[in-house]
Amino acid sequence: MSAFAFAVVATDGAARRGRMVTAHGVVDTPAFMPVGTRAAVKSLSPDDLREAGAQIVLSNTYHLLVRPGPDLVRELGGIHRFMGWDGPILTDSGGFQVFSLAKLRRLTEQGVTFRSPIDGATHELTPERVVDIQRTLGVDIMHPLDECLAYPATRAATERSLALTLRWAARALAAHRAAGDGPALFGIVQGGFEEDLRARAAAETVALGFDGYAIGGMAVGEPKPLMRELTAAVAAALPRDRPRYLMGVGKPDDLIEAVAGGVDMFDCVLPTRNARNGQAFTADGPLTLKQARFTRDPSPLQADCPCYACRRFSRAYLRHLFMADELLVYRLLSLHNLHFFLGLMSAMRTAIAEGTFGPFRARFSQRYGVSSVSVPLDDSERPEA
Amino acid sequence: MSAFAFAVVATDGAARRGRMVTAHGVVDTPAFMPVGTRAAVKSLSPDDLREAGAQIVLSNTYHLLVRPGPDLVRELGGIHRFMGWDGPILTDSGGFQVFSLAKLRRLTEQGVTFRSPIDGATHELTPERVVDIQRTLGVDIMHPLDECLAYPATRAATERSLALTLRWAARALAAHRAAGDGPALFGIVQGGFEEDLRARAAAETVALGFDGYAIGGMAVGEPKPLMRELTAAVAAALPRDRPRYLMGVGKPDDLIEAVAGGVDMFDCVLPTRNARNGQAFTADGPLTLKQARFTRDPSPLQADCPCYACRRFSRAYLRHLFMADELLVYRLLSLHNLHFFLGLMSAMRTAIAEGTFGPFRARFSQRYGVSSVSVPLDDSERPEA
Repeated sequence: MSAFAFAVVATDGAARRGRMVTAHGVVDTPAFMPVGTRAAVKSLSPDDLREAGAQIVLSNTYHLLVRPGPDLVRELGGIHRFMGWDGPILTDSGGFQVFSLAKLRRLTEQGVTFRSPIDGATHELTPERVVDIQRTLGVDIMHPLDECLAYPATRAATERSLALTLRWAARALAAHRAAGDGPALFGIVQGGFEEDLRARAAAETVALGFDGYAIGGMAVGEPKPLMRELTAAVAAALPRDRPRYLMGVGKPDDLIEAVAGGVDMFDCVLPTRNARNGQAFTADGPLTLKQARFTRDPSPLQADCPCYACRRFSRAYLRHLFMADELLVYRLLSLHNLHFFLGLMSAMRTAIAEGTFGPFRARFSQRYGVSSVSVPLDDSERPEA
Repeated sequence: MSAFAFAVVATDGAARRGRMVTAHGVVDTPAFMPVGTRAAVKSLSPDDLREAGAQIVLSNTYHLLVRPGPDLVRELGGIHRFMGWDGPILTDSGGFQVFSLAKLRRLTEQGVTFRSPIDGATHELTPERVVDIQRTLGVDIMHPLDECLAYPATRAATERSLALTLRWAARALAAHRAAGDGPALFGIVQGGFEEDLRARAAAETVALGFDGYAIGGMAVGEPKPLMRELTAAVAAALPRDRPRYLMGVGKPDDLIEAVAGGVDMFDCVLPTRNARNGQAFTADGPLTLKQARFTRDPSPLQADCPCYACRRFSRAYLRHLFMADELLVYRLLSLHNLHFFLGLMSAMRTAIAEGTFGPFRARFSQRYGVSSVSVPLDDSERPEA
């Protein structure tokens, strides 16, 4: 059905090291996907992404739909050529943004209709249309339209929503199969915040038969322990031989805990968004550059970091740029933060392969400390500006 | 007195091809200096500057004084190490900014006092202090405090101002000599908009004996033909064996005309500022990306341009980024525009060496057309944001 393949190559407890093959190249898992909301990762070029070690990039169906539109992207040679990134590209379903961003939204069994905040145009997203948009864009991994509930939600509302998401998933799959060979299609496991509903969602999504499985509707305001528990439970209920993707997560410690629970893929805007807030991730915890203690600090953001920002510039200089709102600093901090996130994934892959994931996890937590990074409640795929 | 040297290596009419040697490397002239207002060229890294062909960068004494301050820069290893640029660095005198930006300014024979718009601190700039600041920064080419008049100015006001600038120039030179070996010090020729006063300014500045000569107080609102005429007249009055630098100029056609008049060095914020307004310079004239005609344009900004933006991206993609206010586009357009300006200088150097500067100038004008680039009246060294 597609050039897509996935295999687990090593395990350590529930943690998995894997290898995913797409039409545009290989992705080693656990993998972190930089977020290219509008076919660009904020302030970074494709060469910057490669240099930081990215193997796959996420872009947002909703944002590309409202501007510049899938037909234009296809006319320009497809999303890879359009954005100058020749590696794998994954798109989400657009559901999350429609439910968090769009105005004048109307939900029916058929799909969801909304008004574009860019030009006022009305768009209808149906399961069939969402598959068509992503095929038109030419991505490697697609997702079906889903409904994303806010936290908290009643059990009755969750059951209704879950049933709708499952009916949409079946329609998406049928439309995708009818369209013939194409990209991979992942299912999205919703089910709110009760374990039995998540279990039902996982079982019924898996029964439909997707190339991989996303865990959606997390990191939307629920307590962190609940998210971790539910994530691990859903991951355990998913087929061993398919990739598992936790949408919109997360902070470094969230990534480690989710990998420990058996998750393979992640995306999050934190590396780039926090760069724009002057925050640098380091193994000793995040640095907030506006703090006066960095004014005369000649050391790099992190001593052993191989990124361009750390090889070339001092904390004092980067702080100066940040205080002066110089555009260069957003790129330098984004580069560094992405190096940090991708380096963390690489270190986890090595630890899993060597059977030392447990000690790695303990060592990381001890050094990183209790995170003081602020987590946007909806940090998954919202526009960043 | 310094590692500074300059030689004219070829001429074609009044146009000169030269070679300038500084403690941090060689500069081929005619040269264009990207503007790094606050020790950073907006949105570009030092590697980007090198890749675009920059050999020397300008930074602004005024901006570095108010933030982060020269002592901090020295403590961090000097301006080259601070900003990660190991090539030559030139700073202006601060005069232009004090007279165009600073609040609560008070001018006396001694110098000029102003209140910092950043933190409210009071700074006094005297000729001696301005030399000290630039030596503390550790630049390669310095300038003495001068008074910059707005256009128009009365003859009496111009004469008073010119006399003050000359007394300040003598004090700067004395302070610089007293401080021992150090960077090069250029004199600044002021004199307003009457040819005889400009001639007097040139003669008296030259009589003081500087390493090179800047032509200041141009591009401040006077008619373009007057600027060109005065520039050529001043250039002709300057010593043949010293570099001539036209401050804050200019558009591509201004550069060509000034080179034809015998100028060797330029700086201007246009390549980076216009990038932020979505404007790309090309040999066929500037492109304004927000225009709808570029929506589906698959071609690069300029077909034969070797820059990263042109090698990798379509006008349609760059327009998409610009319309979406994606940070990446400011870097890509800045890179391209800087390539264009530096490529133009390189083409002029070749034409002068080959004795074909006249035909080159005619060919360029014919293709480039009458420029539709908007020129900020005070585009020389103001903060860009």
